[in-house]
Amino acid sequence: MPKRKGAAGAGGQKPVRHGKTANQRADAQRNRAKILAATPDALRKDPDASVADIAAEAGVGRMTLYGHFKTRAELIDATLADSLERAEAVLADVPLDGDPGGAFEALITSSWMLLDRIRAVFVVAQRELPPTRIREMHEKAEARMRGVVECGQREGVFRVDLPVTWLLAVTHLTMNAAAEETNAGRLDSDDAARVIVGTLRSAFAANGRF
Amino acid sequence: MPKRKGAAGAGGQKPVRHGKTANQRADAQRNRAKILAATPDALRKDPDASVADIAAEAGVGRMTLYGHFKTRAELIDATLADSLERAEAVLADVPLDGDPGGAFEALITSSWMLLDRIRAVFVVAQRELPPTRIREMHEKAEARMRGVVECGQREGVFRVDLPVTWLLAVTHLTMNAAAEETNAGRLDSDDAARVIVGTLRSAFAANGRF
Repeated sequence: MPKRKGAAGAGGQKPVRHGKTANQRADAQRNRAKILAATPDALRKDPDASVADIAAEAGVGRMTLYGHFKTRAELIDATLADSLERAEAVLADVPLDGDPGGAFEALITSSWMLLDRIRAVFVVAQRELPPTRIREMHEKAEARMRGVVECGQREGVFRVDLPVTWLLAVTHLTMNAAAEETNAGRLDSDDAARVIVGTLRSAFAANGRF
Repeated sequence: MPKRKGAAGAGGQKPVRHGKTANQRADAQRNRAKILAATPDALRKDPDASVADIAAEAGVGRMTLYGHFKTRAELIDATLADSLERAEAVLADVPLDGDPGGAFEALITSSWMLLDRIRAVFVVAQRELPPTRIREMHEKAEARMRGVVECGQREGVFRVDLPVTWLLAVTHLTMNAAAEETNAGRLDSDDAARVIVGTLRSAFAANGRF
């Protein structure tokens, strides 16, 4: 016999639930959202911010945070996944039907703007999550970029003497480099998109720049 | 009163030492060398190799290993530092007095050959050591590379529209990308030097490739 009564209790009686009430669930969702929003800020102030620091930034108790995320790594994973989901909504709207060089540039520029907002999380995630997991979270973004690069190769705009996997790896790592250099104060975040595009355009063009 | 007698004991008496005998010291040095040599092999077989796995690979006991290196991170730090010291001896002999493009290419090719031997350590170190520490260990190598890039900029061979710090960061990250891609089986290690040079030459040239 199931202990838990159905939501539609008989005779107008308030249902007895083992789980949380609707209010508690809404609270939990709000707390989760607050934590995910506060994590980038806390890590921007201090890349070594502890779970307690992040909880304080979110205005929730440490135990509340642990109720949602069992470890710091789990919290960083969830924050990056959440940011990448939001990023997808923006990147899906970047027009890619023009020339592949322009499409590549537009995609890189939008990606940097999105990355710039969460670059503290991104840099910490590079150190603390397995690279296969980070790659997995980037699957959609990478598939889109791969489409542009392959199209550019077919049209003779992108070089074909280097493997596509390599061009994608260099794109990814160049974005990382920009995040690291900006965090370290050696690159101005407003100049980073120009620097990334300027580097990759030269590196990937079939003949000089495209 | 100091308990320990001086090395020059009176009356021909054998000095009583608190520390190790010469034989013990020689043994300890041999064990340390064996551990440092075995770490790259153990990490190549399994990037998550434990201290016990590495001790087994070196043919020493786990406690012997802990006698030299208190933590896995300390062991990885020492292995990378040791490899970079050996690399310095090779890199110092690369002739840099020709044209800056050729010097850059020679330096990258030698660096990749050295990195390829220890790429498992390098990839693990990227994840487990603070980036400032890794940068610090690369100081001499980076200073040499900076000299070549700045010379290339003065001679109009390397582009000047991007900061030198950025060109050095991209060089470093492109080497990382090659190590990652080779480890993941997406790039052949024999082809990696061509791929790295081919990418950076295009990315850094003042006008197309140099």
